[in-house]
Amino acid sequence: MTALLPHPDRLFPADPGERDIARRLYAEVADAPIYSPHGHVDARLLLDNNHFPDPAALLITPDHYALRLLHAVGVPLDQLGVRPVGASGAGASSAAAAASAAASTETSVSGREIWRRLCENWNVFLGTPVRYWFETEFSSVFGLAEHPSPASADALYDQLVETLATEEFRPRALFERFRIAVLATTDDPADDLAAHLALRNDPTFAGRVVPTFRADRYMHANETAWPANLERLGAVSGIDTSTYAGLLEALRSRRAYFAAAGATATDTGVVDAGSEPLEVADAERLHAAALRGSLSAGEATAYRHNMLYQLAAMASEDGLVMQLHPGVLRNHHQPTFDRFGPDTGHDLPEPTHYTRPLTPILRDFGTNSTFRLVLFTVDETAFSREIAPLAGFYPSVYAGAPWWFLDSPAGIARYRSAITDSAGFTKTSGFIDDTRAFCSIPARHDMSRRSDAAYLASLVSSHQVSEDNAVGIARRLVGEIPVSTFRLAE
Amino acid sequence: MTALLPHPDRLFPADPGERDIARRLYAEVADAPIYSPHGHVDARLLLDNNHFPDPAALLITPDHYALRLLHAVGVPLDQLGVRPVGASGAGASSAAAAASAAASTETSVSGREIWRRLCENWNVFLGTPVRYWFETEFSSVFGLAEHPSPASADALYDQLVETLATEEFRPRALFERFRIAVLATTDDPADDLAAHLALRNDPTFAGRVVPTFRADRYMHANETAWPANLERLGAVSGIDTSTYAGLLEALRSRRAYFAAAGATATDTGVVDAGSEPLEVADAERLHAAALRGSLSAGEATAYRHNMLYQLAAMASEDGLVMQLHPGVLRNHHQPTFDRFGPDTGHDLPEPTHYTRPLTPILRDFGTNSTFRLVLFTVDETAFSREIAPLAGFYPSVYAGAPWWFLDSPAGIARYRSAITDSAGFTKTSGFIDDTRAFCSIPARHDMSRRSDAAYLASLVSSHQVSEDNAVGIARRLVGEIPVSTFRLAE
Amino acid sequence: MTALLPHPDRLFPADPGERDIARRLYAEVADAPIYSPHGHVDARLLLDNNHFPDPAALLITPDHYALRLLHAVGVPLDQLGVRPVGASGAGASSAAAAASAAASTETSVSGREIWRRLCENWNVFLGTPVRYWFETEFSSVFGLAEHPSPASADALYDQLVETLATEEFRPRALFERFRIAVLATTDDPADDLAAHLALRNDPTFAGRVVPTFRADRYMHANETAWPANLERLGAVSGIDTSTYAGLLEALRSRRAYFAAAGATATDTGVVDAGSEPLEVADAERLHAAALRGSLSAGEATAYRHNMLYQLAAMASEDGLVMQLHPGVLRNHHQPTFDRFGPDTGHDLPEPTHYTRPLTPILRDFGTNSTFRLVLFTVDETAFSREIAPLAGFYPSVYAGAPWWFLDSPAGIARYRSAITDSAGFTKTSGFIDDTRAFCSIPARHDMSRRSDAAYLASLVSSHQVSEDNAVGIARRLVGEIPVSTFRLAE
Repeated sequence: MTALLPHPDRLFPADPGERDIARRLYAEVADAPIYSPHGHVDARLLLDNNHFPDPAALLITPDHYALRLLHAVGVPLDQLGVRPVGASGAGASSAAAAASAAASTETSVSGREIWRRLCENWNVFLGTPVRYWFETEFSSVFGLAEHPSPASADALYDQLVETLATEEFRPRALFERFRIAVLATTDDPADDLAAHLALRNDPTFAGRVVPTFRADRYMHANETAWPANLERLGAVSGIDTSTYAGLLEALRSRRAYFAAAGATATDTGVVDAGSEPLEVADAERLHAAALRGSLSAGEATAYRHNMLYQLAAMASEDGLVMQLHPGVLRNHHQPTFDRFGPDTGHDLPEPTHYTRPLTPILRDFGTNSTFRLVLFTVDETAFSREIAPLAGFYPSVYAGAPWWFLDSPAGIARYRSAITDSAGFTKTSGFIDDTRAFCSIPARHDMSRRSDAAYLASLVSSHQVSEDNAVGIARRLVGEIPVSTFRLAE
Repeated sequence: MTALLPHPDRLFPADPGERDIARRLYAEVADAPIYSPHGHVDARLLLDNNHFPDPAALLITPDHYALRLLHAVGVPLDQLGVRPVGASGAGASSAAAAASAAASTETSVSGREIWRRLCENWNVFLGTPVRYWFETEFSSVFGLAEHPSPASADALYDQLVETLATEEFRPRALFERFRIAVLATTDDPADDLAAHLALRNDPTFAGRVVPTFRADRYMHANETAWPANLERLGAVSGIDTSTYAGLLEALRSRRAYFAAAGATATDTGVVDAGSEPLEVADAERLHAAALRGSLSAGEATAYRHNMLYQLAAMASEDGLVMQLHPGVLRNHHQPTFDRFGPDTGHDLPEPTHYTRPLTPILRDFGTNSTFRLVLFTVDETAFSREIAPLAGFYPSVYAGAPWWFLDSPAGIARYRSAITDSAGFTKTSGFIDDTRAFCSIPARHDMSRRSDAAYLASLVSSHQVSEDNAVGIARRLVGEIPVSTFRLAE
Repeated sequence: MTALLPHPDRLFPADPGERDIARRLYAEVADAPIYSPHGHVDARLLLDNNHFPDPAALLITPDHYALRLLHAVGVPLDQLGVRPVGASGAGASSAAAAASAAASTETSVSGREIWRRLCENWNVFLGTPVRYWFETEFSSVFGLAEHPSPASADALYDQLVETLATEEFRPRALFERFRIAVLATTDDPADDLAAHLALRNDPTFAGRVVPTFRADRYMHANETAWPANLERLGAVSGIDTSTYAGLLEALRSRRAYFAAAGATATDTGVVDAGSEPLEVADAERLHAAALRGSLSAGEATAYRHNMLYQLAAMASEDGLVMQLHPGVLRNHHQPTFDRFGPDTGHDLPEPTHYTRPLTPILRDFGTNSTFRLVLFTVDETAFSREIAPLAGFYPSVYAGAPWWFLDSPAGIARYRSAITDSAGFTKTSGFIDDTRAFCSIPARHDMSRRSDAAYLASLVSSHQVSEDNAVGIARRLVGEIPVSTFRLAE
């Protein structure tokens, strides 16, 4: 048995003097409230406030980071609670089913079995942020005192089950304990936001949970499910989406609905950041062709690029902050997609560019004071080459925190080193946890606060920034900066 | 009020032992003369030797680094002294007007107002090289003892005005005080170099100011101003440039003129490094088409690629060192360009390649001992992937210092880490300040010397290089290396 | 005279506490046996066990790293023992001749002269891994006590000559002294592996030397030598290679032959990682066209992409570990190639992608438990963007050690920083020396062990990994990991 005791100085620099600085900076922000302006927790979790079903469904199955590395060392996804897509075949409906299945452990494998897989492979995670998050989370949130291992697996599982059955571990209690000031979810424009609205109107819940408008599925006009998605959006909005003009109108209407429900931002995930607008007539023509199922690959791309431009145009009018997450090739492994659906660990980064593809949007809205664009990347070469230089000229552009594969102590250090020269701290987004693993939220923000303290300590110890100024930056990074970047001030 | 006291150990490593090494290495070069083989100061400044007009026109308006970050946090360019382009419309003449306007504060906004904008936003620069340079410059050059802030702004401005009125702050006095051994300017081939020649013949000025031949505007045959530029070059050179052969001849003639005036180098800025030569007949055909205004985009690219090749061919004959700065997309924000002209902060980096596009030049001149090619980049991925490997094989190729967005302590550290393995120190260019902010020159070179001392100290403390050898490298980096790379030995 | 005394703490971190950790970790692996699963030493060297001919032929001429930097500072290749291609002209035969010439010093220049060139330019290597390797090798292997310099050159050469004449410096004695557990060579499929088989059957040699199947020359159907290569392969295998089906059959047959001779892996070097398969009829058509010499450039690429796919298909059947080295543009400097043939220092990196081009292979074999793919790169941007994410999902994919231009202390540090987040340690390959400089093998592995100790010490000192766990990782990296990645367990 090995004691699980995350060190109070973890992630701080080695040099004793620099470490002392980092300690002092971290102490200023360690207990600050958490702003989580982008993530994937379900609002219903907090509305229902049910006990979490079992430890694996809470901690492992929804955590892509953990899932993919276990898969990479040979654990099949179905042994981790990912449920195969039903017999209904591929397509949007089955994809949605699979997505919900992925978040559930109602499969043939028990939560205890899944937990054992993690424990057996605990050392596979050495050096990775997954291990780091789990250690903090298991220890600080759940009070586990021992490292996972084949020997400790069952006892730890029993302890987790017992813990989760307590009142202190219901979602709302954790929300408060985590000191979450704002939690943003990610939602489809056709969502009625019932959970959000109920939460706002619930006098027993004081937390702030805001939706985020994510219209991706209306941008990909060559996907099988596109016409059905359009129809659903039309039904929800009461606007005929069978024309391009109607689709834009419906999206505008739903943005207003989201804003009224508390949204301050949108999100968009695309394979590239192309944003060339189309003439209205051309867009209508492609829209009609897509409904007929006769859109070429090139036309689908043109349609998507135009939609990105139109979303920026809407953002320049309604002031919803536009988050852009380009550069991910989705569903790389077709057999896994066919069996388990999307979001099952094989969305993979590609080289990603920003300067040239974003020219149309920035030409037309880049200096518009209503417009705001937060750029994320999984291609870290873009940090110093494109994202920081863009954020360092355009008032509208902000450099998003390290995303996904880069969301780690090492990734954050490289991000700060690459971004600060051209964009300083003011033009960065503040930390984004981007997680669907609710209980990992404090561990992730804590990691970010420690990493930023370490980075700032290096600036202080090399006399590039005074310690007073570093304290100011550390505080702004966890408060004023996310609040102002995401327009969260009420 | 906060004291402005740049620390004597700034930029040195945190570990006390390693810091001591860095201190000793830096001490060896701290006061060495400055070789500035590439920059944008105007020779006329030194010829005229007038008092600087006002602090903002000297320190802020010509500094793109400062301008762009102020713009990025919402300060409009015209509040920073950038003068809108006149009613005469776009094109070369208005561009030139805008460029000169950018260096002037004869706008509706006063120097004091511009200075206040900087002071109000002083903390926006925290962690950036701009802040670092300004702190060193304000303190060491101007003797300011207090940090800029809204409260201190007016008093500091008054002190700067007073200081600039003294004899010690006229350009030549500063040139001497800065210990500038060589200052290279950047000049159009049609320039008569009158200021340079007058300076050379001025017995009261002992400094060395050399021109640099930059023929960019003759390479872009699809630009509106191209025919007029050609005509002007023809007039200056006395050679008919209406043919391609004539243009080459005129360029050759002007290179000789520049060399006679002291130039040892040329510079070229292009969006990509393509260098495929054309057959003479094809080049003549494109030249004629360009004069008729009927060049396609693809033909303009082919024309430019061929011109890059021809400039290399000339360099292999006359021995002018060829500097290449590819990878910048100029004038990204059209509305700003339309209003304020070029060089107003929105030239932005793009992914940039070298190995394949430079094949024709390196095939034909790569091992020619007269030819020398210094490669710069704003895409730092090229350092370890292409620039160092090229410099590590071709005798003609040198790895240029970190450029523009990468010209910072962090950028220099990454450059050395990425370059040294394949190119060592001998095949690097030495530091390049590349500035039009005359008074920032010593601060920039000092930053480079400190950063290199820190890097060398890390090699010494990890026993990769002896301290004796590190001293030798540090000295060579500020003397022998720029002198030999840029052929500055007289 | 300067004493040559590599420091026992070299490459360890500066902070004393962290350095102590690194020392302890290194001590655990410093004397561990060497697994060298990929390299370019000739098996015949060990079979013949002759004395090495002369110091330059052993230490300099076969070392591309040393050669290219000497060339870059102006030493012509022929002064370094690289023999010009004979009068027989270009093409495969002359290329082969040049390659063998490159490993020999039977040129007009003597070994002593070549050695003097190195000594005169010794400081050119400061800060590079070449200098680092040489210092370790000269000191630890050859007992030189003085740095090379013009003054020491002849005495050192005499000492080396004398040393090489001793029994202790014959190849087999060094093999034992180096503690090489496995040495993999790189071999053409048409090779009869006579040296390997003789070594296996030699009761006086206990070492394990295994061949590696490298079929590159059968993939490039537009190269002049392709038909002759095919014919040779056909003769060796007894299978008609004039058809595509025949070629595949011959390759399969030779893979089995290699496996029987001890091979556990293949290697492939291609300019890009494209792997789109062809229909059999299309492949046959291109094969026939290639034999007629009428293959277009595009068809040659399609043929090569398909061959890469077919090699993966074979690997998924026979379990030979597939190493992939994409992204190198071969023979960049045509005049040097014409004069000296291939492998003469001007193979140069290009931007390299993996996620998209490898889609077909990974779709069909990515989760096949027999298939294993080790990805290498000379474009380090791929580490965090593509290679680690691929290795972090696909059970078959491993992140290869830093290759070639990245094979240095700094390169290893960047590799670990970029790779570990998504791939941990388990999905990495272990160190690969990839050398044809036999005597540099221990110095290279020692560098890797020290660099990994330094990286692990940073994880320990920042409390991301316990020291116990770090010891475990350090040991696995030099034993279990290369053994299991390359299936070396017998």
